[in-house]
Amino acid sequence: MRLLTKLRDAIGGRREAAAAEAQRHLDALTKPPGSLGRLEELAVRMVALTGRAPSVAAPVIFTFAADHGVVAEGVSAYPQSVTAQMVENFLRGGAAVNVLARQAGARVVVADFGVATPLGAPAGLVVRRIGAGTQNMALGPAMTRAQAVEAVEAGAALAEEAIEAGADLIGSGEMGIGNTTAASAITAAITGAPADAVTGRGTGVDDAGRARKVAVVRRALEVNAPDAGDGLDVLAKVGGFEIAGLVGVILAGAAHRVPIALDGFIAGAAALVAVALAPDARHALFASHRSAEPGHALALRHLGLEPYLALDMRLGEGTGAALFVPLARAAAAIYAEMATFKSAGVDGPV
Amino acid sequence: MRLLTKLRDAIGGRREAAAAEAQRHLDALTKPPGSLGRLEELAVRMVALTGRAPSVAAPVIFTFAADHGVVAEGVSAYPQSVTAQMVENFLRGGAAVNVLARQAGARVVVADFGVATPLGAPAGLVVRRIGAGTQNMALGPAMTRAQAVEAVEAGAALAEEAIEAGADLIGSGEMGIGNTTAASAITAAITGAPADAVTGRGTGVDDAGRARKVAVVRRALEVNAPDAGDGLDVLAKVGGFEIAGLVGVILAGAAHRVPIALDGFIAGAAALVAVALAPDARHALFASHRSAEPGHALALRHLGLEPYLALDMRLGEGTGAALFVPLARAAAAIYAEMATFKSAGVDGPV
Repeated sequence: MRLLTKLRDAIGGRREAAAAEAQRHLDALTKPPGSLGRLEELAVRMVALTGRAPSVAAPVIFTFAADHGVVAEGVSAYPQSVTAQMVENFLRGGAAVNVLARQAGARVVVADFGVATPLGAPAGLVVRRIGAGTQNMALGPAMTRAQAVEAVEAGAALAEEAIEAGADLIGSGEMGIGNTTAASAITAAITGAPADAVTGRGTGVDDAGRARKVAVVRRALEVNAPDAGDGLDVLAKVGGFEIAGLVGVILAGAAHRVPIALDGFIAGAAALVAVALAPDARHALFASHRSAEPGHALALRHLGLEPYLALDMRLGEGTGAALFVPLARAAAAIYAEMATFKSAGVDGPV
Repeated sequence: MRLLTKLRDAIGGRREAAAAEAQRHLDALTKPPGSLGRLEELAVRMVALTGRAPSVAAPVIFTFAADHGVVAEGVSAYPQSVTAQMVENFLRGGAAVNVLARQAGARVVVADFGVATPLGAPAGLVVRRIGAGTQNMALGPAMTRAQAVEAVEAGAALAEEAIEAGADLIGSGEMGIGNTTAASAITAAITGAPADAVTGRGTGVDDAGRARKVAVVRRALEVNAPDAGDGLDVLAKVGGFEIAGLVGVILAGAAHRVPIALDGFIAGAAALVAVALAPDARHALFASHRSAEPGHALALRHLGLEPYLALDMRLGEGTGAALFVPLARAAAAIYAEMATFKSAGVDGPV
């Protein structure tokens, strides 16, 4: 609990003076004021977080994997074996997140937070197992509060290591068959939205499968009665080990003032928990895209975040975060490299 | 007229068999089918155009500049001198499009299609002047039909040169004080939308300035009565030299089956003219983003295009096209580099 408390205490607000100075700088560049729209807002938000000119030299994407006891309820289109198989795919570099991270010049950290199928410790895998998958949240809590804290702190420690090694943009990603069900339950618990509004098709269940998922989310909320005001309670009762790890990543990023590129729905659920634990963590969060999962829009609205990409993706892994990297780099380059009206001898408005 | 006729004749439809094969390939990759959303659609559309695996090795952005006689009506927040000054800024590499193109690894071709202020022929500038700016379209046609054809063919010839040299993605960009007024008139003429719906603040005019712009667009349409069924008539009467050049770029890209990343509102107006001249040119067009200019959404709807970026930009120059390059590269990399379920030994749906 010590690391978690330390991080929560360290998370602070926006650096408003630096943000105002950043906007003045952007307004002096050779373009009509504000004409680069959200690229300018992105640059200003990075400055408001870090207090210095935006820079994206060493992005790192955390792809945390774990399994979910709730798959026993038949909520996923794919068997649980896929979680472990995809971890192996990540380690070989053949998954979507690997391809997109390579394109973006980002490093991918793959960690096992509790995959059910034994993986051993293959080269490149970070092992931070909390258990062999969570318990079935339709019957009781997914994990104990102690496990939730352990997973959050393990994720935070990984992020702190990366930040110490120079990471200046952190992406959140995940893999875990069944984890859209957990994310739906978290989103319902924290935003207060009904189960039906936050539950989608995940990897692709049919209408009957989705109806089953909605019923399971509803049951998990009834059985566990998570306390919306207590992020750790929600996380332990209806979360997942990989989601808890991402909560730690977000808290560490926010505490160290490193921007966090949120991926999709699962990462959004982790962000809801992180912001419940430390409201100012919101200032470190950037919503890369809006997932096709219906709960994601509700989570983003609750977080007050507007996505940058309109791609209807719903894969997870960190794929949206990887696609955000070039946008963040573009914002940083605009900030650093454009001529000013004065330096370029361009006339201002009449 | 010979090049224009040749290009129109060469523009054909989608390669549907290749597109279906591309979708089958994407469905075999280690992700739920369709879960990469519009990144998959982007890859499929590139294959449907070119007939081969998507590749973005040598992107080129055309930034064409020209002046507009209609500025005499007081429709812009900036003086006409800015067009020439920004061309010099482009040549020195200090403008937003230069910064974003460098980030994206794209070459920028800057061409003078008719800037009013004498520029000479500074190093790096391509000179294709049709005149010293257009005539004031509020009083009569912006240019003659012969000038429109000359500008279209000059733009097309530049695109053909680039394609011959290996360009595999073409971006459309522009600079011209007053050109949102021309784009509004083109959009109203071709889509049938009223002047008020297609006219925005451009570089930043106030309410009175916008009201003046709406009145000027309305007058230009009344005075010239452009024929919506005749793209060249619309272009000549209410267009601009740089817009005509971009029409040529689009027709050449479509004829040679090279994808065109449309920038914002002005490029959208050029696309409306190009598609009026050759409806199948639409298959070569990719809408990088949706501009904050209200007419752009109407133009995109008419073209049947959905933008990829949600950035509220309204700068032009080719900045949106430059930001699209990493997305196109990402789609190409997904297509080429991901493992299949079979190669990775990942189980399919239960």
